[in-house]
Amino acid sequence: MSRSTRGDALLGASCPRPLDADRITLSHGAGAGASARLFEELLLPALDNPALASRHDGALLEPPELAGGRIAFTTDTFVVDPLVFPGGDIGSLAVHGTLNDLAMCGARPLALSCALVLEEGLPIERLRGLMASLGRAAHAAGVPIATGDTKVVERGKGDGLFVNTSGIGIVPAGREVGPARVRPGDAILVSGCVGRHGAAVLSVREGIAFESAIESDSAPLPDLVEALFAVGADVHCLRDPTRGGVGAVLHEIASAAGVEIELREASLPVDAAVASACELLGLDPLFLACEGRLLAFVPESESDAALASLRAHSLGRDAERIGRVSVGRPRVVVETRIGARRLLPFPAGDPLPRIC
Amino acid sequence: MSRSTRGDALLGASCPRPLDADRITLSHGAGAGASARLFEELLLPALDNPALASRHDGALLEPPELAGGRIAFTTDTFVVDPLVFPGGDIGSLAVHGTLNDLAMCGARPLALSCALVLEEGLPIERLRGLMASLGRAAHAAGVPIATGDTKVVERGKGDGLFVNTSGIGIVPAGREVGPARVRPGDAILVSGCVGRHGAAVLSVREGIAFESAIESDSAPLPDLVEALFAVGADVHCLRDPTRGGVGAVLHEIASAAGVEIELREASLPVDAAVASACELLGLDPLFLACEGRLLAFVPESESDAALASLRAHSLGRDAERIGRVSVGRPRVVVETRIGARRLLPFPAGDPLPRIC
Repeated sequence: MSRSTRGDALLGASCPRPLDADRITLSHGAGAGASARLFEELLLPALDNPALASRHDGALLEPPELAGGRIAFTTDTFVVDPLVFPGGDIGSLAVHGTLNDLAMCGARPLALSCALVLEEGLPIERLRGLMASLGRAAHAAGVPIATGDTKVVERGKGDGLFVNTSGIGIVPAGREVGPARVRPGDAILVSGCVGRHGAAVLSVREGIAFESAIESDSAPLPDLVEALFAVGADVHCLRDPTRGGVGAVLHEIASAAGVEIELREASLPVDAAVASACELLGLDPLFLACEGRLLAFVPESESDAALASLRAHSLGRDAERIGRVSVGRPRVVVETRIGARRLLPFPAGDPLPRIC
Repeated sequence: MSRSTRGDALLGASCPRPLDADRITLSHGAGAGASARLFEELLLPALDNPALASRHDGALLEPPELAGGRIAFTTDTFVVDPLVFPGGDIGSLAVHGTLNDLAMCGARPLALSCALVLEEGLPIERLRGLMASLGRAAHAAGVPIATGDTKVVERGKGDGLFVNTSGIGIVPAGREVGPARVRPGDAILVSGCVGRHGAAVLSVREGIAFESAIESDSAPLPDLVEALFAVGADVHCLRDPTRGGVGAVLHEIASAAGVEIELREASLPVDAAVASACELLGLDPLFLACEGRLLAFVPESESDAALASLRAHSLGRDAERIGRVSVGRPRVVVETRIGARRLLPFPAGDPLPRIC
């Protein structure tokens, strides 16, 4: 499969097909469509248990020894290509990505792990730079890299560096955040311009220079989440739109919560540079990955206060209300700029392999 | 570097050399020598924090929200080649390896994560079989795979399947297990015959058939550890001798605790088939990986009771007392079968790449 898969792959099928390939393809890693089928039809049956079946960004555990507390637990392997991109690298991304998964559980991060798969021949100085970046990102977020592992594979059996970060955090008593709490009447907020991470990685990979350089939005979201809870908002669900972007997340939530989601296209904040890049490449910013944005589902009555608290934070200045949840079939309906309504397709193909 | 590196690499240097290569080599992943230097000279400075500096198999965390409890947190990526070997596969190994790291912290496992890096072209049925094995191993140990992640890389950028499992567990109040507690007078116990995992993987990789097939000892150790604590033993330290085998672990403990370790070669339990294989391949079973064995450091006065409790468990039938800790320079002294004393070399080269 070409690396420069264009946006038309997104328009393939409007709902998931069965897992009909006999070999793994790049689309099984794209975070939507074939990925979802791989999870549903192969991984979930093999690894079945209630925590995994909840389909959250992380698991919530309540050990009897720790009365009252809940532990959030999440994992992510980063295989981003290239290792360095405008606005970040695999080191900072590996920290932000996993911290953000914890934050999306409503958790305050406690510690991260860091497990490396190095390819024979990787320059030591390159590794040193990437690990320094990873260390700085963890330090800036105030979360220790508490444990780690290093493996080396032969030349041609890896790709420079893969980084797994897993994370644990504590969910304060009273916070219940997850797709199961999404209900008709909820407003949907996004914390900033979407698609910058995907566009930044793609611009390097395709060797495209835009008038203004697009930097990844990669950033740690735990503080922004705390700001949301600090105003007392009854946050029903949080999700960071990484692989598959806002589009994939809305499909997942509609399906998991059994609700219809209405999205106002005109309200979706998109940088001018990202919009130009998308036009040039035939991509839809709705399906481009973010690594420093969140979607928040809150009751309509609390949405003004929640939006204000996001906008008061440096990572949420461009926050917008982009849609709402309503009664209906599990699907995503887009109100276009000219007022028409269309169904958002479920991304079946592989928009952008190895974006994170 | 040849895959069939022979044992003479083990005799290279008797102490770590500086990180003098400018590129990653396979020996940086071998779990001793160059691996240790990579950790000391590059990773630890980049990721510095007290938890990581403790050099345990996992981190112990004490969040203020959870008064009294301690959380153990560990991570391991499995890149074993081949994916299936006598006595196990990458699925069961990924479960046992991480459960065992938790057990070595004195923790009762609470949950595992599972993050996959799939290579494009991997047959789906092969993945299904390996995931079924992983799921069975987790189920047999009574520990859920609570969260996961799947990434796909292009053909030639991976090697079929890499599996990261991270794990969290709870350390019951009163258990203090770690290298810092090892002291002169401690007896050193091993729970069974050593080197079977390394020999099993190597026999497949080198295409060698032995008279009796060597099966990996891969097994989950949390129950065996509970059996040790159940007799009230004041266990000072636990360690599973994986990469680098018993030899590498003894060097690590001697260095971390600042003690001399005396090992009686004649007491080390080794299967006849493993001994033959080692003779044929010029390897030392002391440096071959185990995946279902533990080393326990206990006060001499409690060693009989501890040994009996190990032997009463199906995974500890062949347990032996193999040495003791004494006052002296941090080093490992071997009392050979003929009664001579020699220093155990620090494995500098790469005994067996991709053994786990």
